[in-house]
Amino acid sequence: MDTTAIQSKIRALRANAKILSSSLESERNALLKSIAEGLTRDFQTIKAANEKDQVAAIESGQKEALVKRLVFSDEKLHASLLGLEQVAAQSDPIGSIKQRRILDDNLLLEQIAVPIGVIGMIFEARPDALIQIVSLCLKSGNGIILKGGREAYQTNTALVASIKESCKGSALGSDWLLLLESHSDVDTMLKMEDDIDLLIPRGSNAFVKYVMEHTSIPVLGHADGICHLYVDAQADLQKAVEIAFDSKTQYPAACNSIETLLVNSAVAKEFLPKMAERFSAGKVLMHGDARASEIINCIPYQEGDWKKEYLALEINIHVVDSLEEAISHIELFGSHHTDAIVTEDEKAIRTFYTQVDSADVFANCSTRFADGFRFGLGSEVGISTAKIHARGPVGLEGLMTTKYLVKGKGQVVNSYTQEGGSSFKHKDLPLSKPTLLEGETV
Amino acid sequence: MDTTAIQSKIRALRANAKILSSSLESERNALLKSIAEGLTRDFQTIKAANEKDQVAAIESGQKEALVKRLVFSDEKLHASLLGLEQVAAQSDPIGSIKQRRILDDNLLLEQIAVPIGVIGMIFEARPDALIQIVSLCLKSGNGIILKGGREAYQTNTALVASIKESCKGSALGSDWLLLLESHSDVDTMLKMEDDIDLLIPRGSNAFVKYVMEHTSIPVLGHADGICHLYVDAQADLQKAVEIAFDSKTQYPAACNSIETLLVNSAVAKEFLPKMAERFSAGKVLMHGDARASEIINCIPYQEGDWKKEYLALEINIHVVDSLEEAISHIELFGSHHTDAIVTEDEKAIRTFYTQVDSADVFANCSTRFADGFRFGLGSEVGISTAKIHARGPVGLEGLMTTKYLVKGKGQVVNSYTQEGGSSFKHKDLPLSKPTLLEGETV
Repeated sequence: MDTTAIQSKIRALRANAKILSSSLESERNALLKSIAEGLTRDFQTIKAANEKDQVAAIESGQKEALVKRLVFSDEKLHASLLGLEQVAAQSDPIGSIKQRRILDDNLLLEQIAVPIGVIGMIFEARPDALIQIVSLCLKSGNGIILKGGREAYQTNTALVASIKESCKGSALGSDWLLLLESHSDVDTMLKMEDDIDLLIPRGSNAFVKYVMEHTSIPVLGHADGICHLYVDAQADLQKAVEIAFDSKTQYPAACNSIETLLVNSAVAKEFLPKMAERFSAGKVLMHGDARASEIINCIPYQEGDWKKEYLALEINIHVVDSLEEAISHIELFGSHHTDAIVTEDEKAIRTFYTQVDSADVFANCSTRFADGFRFGLGSEVGISTAKIHARGPVGLEGLMTTKYLVKGKGQVVNSYTQEGGSSFKHKDLPLSKPTLLEGETV
Repeated sequence: MDTTAIQSKIRALRANAKILSSSLESERNALLKSIAEGLTRDFQTIKAANEKDQVAAIESGQKEALVKRLVFSDEKLHASLLGLEQVAAQSDPIGSIKQRRILDDNLLLEQIAVPIGVIGMIFEARPDALIQIVSLCLKSGNGIILKGGREAYQTNTALVASIKESCKGSALGSDWLLLLESHSDVDTMLKMEDDIDLLIPRGSNAFVKYVMEHTSIPVLGHADGICHLYVDAQADLQKAVEIAFDSKTQYPAACNSIETLLVNSAVAKEFLPKMAERFSAGKVLMHGDARASEIINCIPYQEGDWKKEYLALEINIHVVDSLEEAISHIELFGSHHTDAIVTEDEKAIRTFYTQVDSADVFANCSTRFADGFRFGLGSEVGISTAKIHARGPVGLEGLMTTKYLVKGKGQVVNSYTQEGGSSFKHKDLPLSKPTLLEGETV
């Protein structure tokens, strides 16, 4: 399609997506169920398309990690169906009341959650991500424009065909969903600030940065994932070894894997040999500073290593003298994504929680828990390191905005500004039903 | 000061402002009280500075409206002291729990509110706005960089001197507050995306747009305030006249004043003569479409009027045939700020609430109620028409972000991905105390 055709499709989607924002939860949940049934029904077709994508990826010499993510297997289908069920089970985000306050007699204020509008989602070649994103946008009442990695194009096309087929039985139709084809469509999207309310790019740092720099549409996401684990002087060292190993190796290509292990000098001599043994067994390449190198065998630290996101079985080891030094290092070199401490000292945990300015701050567990599914959000559209709007794993809540509703009986402001006139009562009410949207009178 | 000096001052403020984010509510409230006492103590000095600003503004031929906003009178002091009291009375936003969930045994998740960091506030020549902004940032634990309209510079300098004097008795100090002097400092701020987390520009449309287009720092605010009032076929016409009059004339220069009055054709003949009489008495200039012109005397509609923000005693009148036509007009020409309906028909109210996509959607009251103080937020830093982060009048809540804390006992993700391994419990807990920050153990 040419640019003009894409633009009119996006504008049409914006108009059509309004049907979602005023739909009933039961309609959206029924459609989520139909989509799940449809994916099961169409699985052979989807699998055939996916095999073509895999063959093409292998033939064009793509990395093993990419091909692995590309696979839409029985397990992936099963996980996707579970995800659809969980999203349907979440309580309806549309119309949920955030504030409810009597401003004065017969003058009621409510702040309610409403869908943002149209979300533009640009994601890597991972077919199961498409299903997660579609389910979250549908449940939250947002129109969705999808641009997936080109290596998954045949699979994505088959998935969207199946979803659109499932929409046929629903009053909501399928015009709230659009799959774009070519990479140049991304640039068209970046310029449509009047028609797209939020962009969520996933993928390489370079790509996310490109999006951020070339659009005036708000962008949710993270460029870097430089995460740390700090092993404190009061750490349980056995726990520390297991947590560090999991945080690095459980899925090294993930943004919430650690890149640097900070070790307190008081325990370095005891801890590092155990850690190095475990890392070596797991084929993890270690880069160490001068003090680490005195204790274990590792590649000497080089200028710039602290800022590297390896996304591979490779890690920095840095010996520090205090909790404060660890926190300073994290603030200086980290990307404010996910950082964790291992310690039995409750005071150190509280200091770490307070002073580390990251989206996810953990104590005594793996950084790999930073994930919408593991957090119980049902699913996620991505992880945000922005401090505005949504921070950390983003589920339904991050796809909502709010609206203030006021209902009166003819009140005017002038009577509140006169000497001896009306004055505000400002009394908070319980967030009870019926709401103004449900016809509450004043 | 030159650019380099401003940059180092802003960087120093960022480091110093951290003291606020980990401070006690009692310390912040005590300081708010000291600031109020200080303003009373220093009022004669501030007033003298304000008189100099007023004289300079009159001599340089500034408009009456600007001079009026510039005045820092006894009434403005009184209102400011009341505002400081109200902000202190709001519950502490720092550390408030948004979510609390057991992920698994001994693995607890909390989402808590934390300050955004450093706010850059660029505002018009209105000294009372400075006090509102400082009080909200202090209470919410954010560092604040102020750049006020140059016409109020002497007043702002005196206000900030008074505030800094009041900080001397507090452990929090005054290094979380910086007043910039010259207009060129704004451009310096726009480029400091690593040190400023959020910009809130207030002022003319052109200025707000300039800021939005010249920075990669997130911007909160609104460019236009094109607000509507729709008088429905089922309206109480006497209420409609009063609400329309207040919405236009109570403060015409405000962004939440209406620019266009939409009138259902079923009541136009009865309503418009009454409305015109009231508007004429209030010296409001009326622009009417062809059908309005047949009923009352008004300036004929000209192409482009529906998009005008008069900010003066001037209004458009447009006769429509249905609620749907009114809503379409608002969606097409409005700025998604504040729009209201007058009707006794509950179904029409619900349709209006659902389908008008604005920050504030009102029924049977004046649009002028769209304001942080009137909404009971204590005060406001501005009104946002963004759909991301904060929408409508922005008080303390809009100056906060969140952080996810997790506390475990050594859990790793790998054990949740194995056949027969651990599985998540995902049980929501009441938002009770003690929180993880208060030392809750798992």
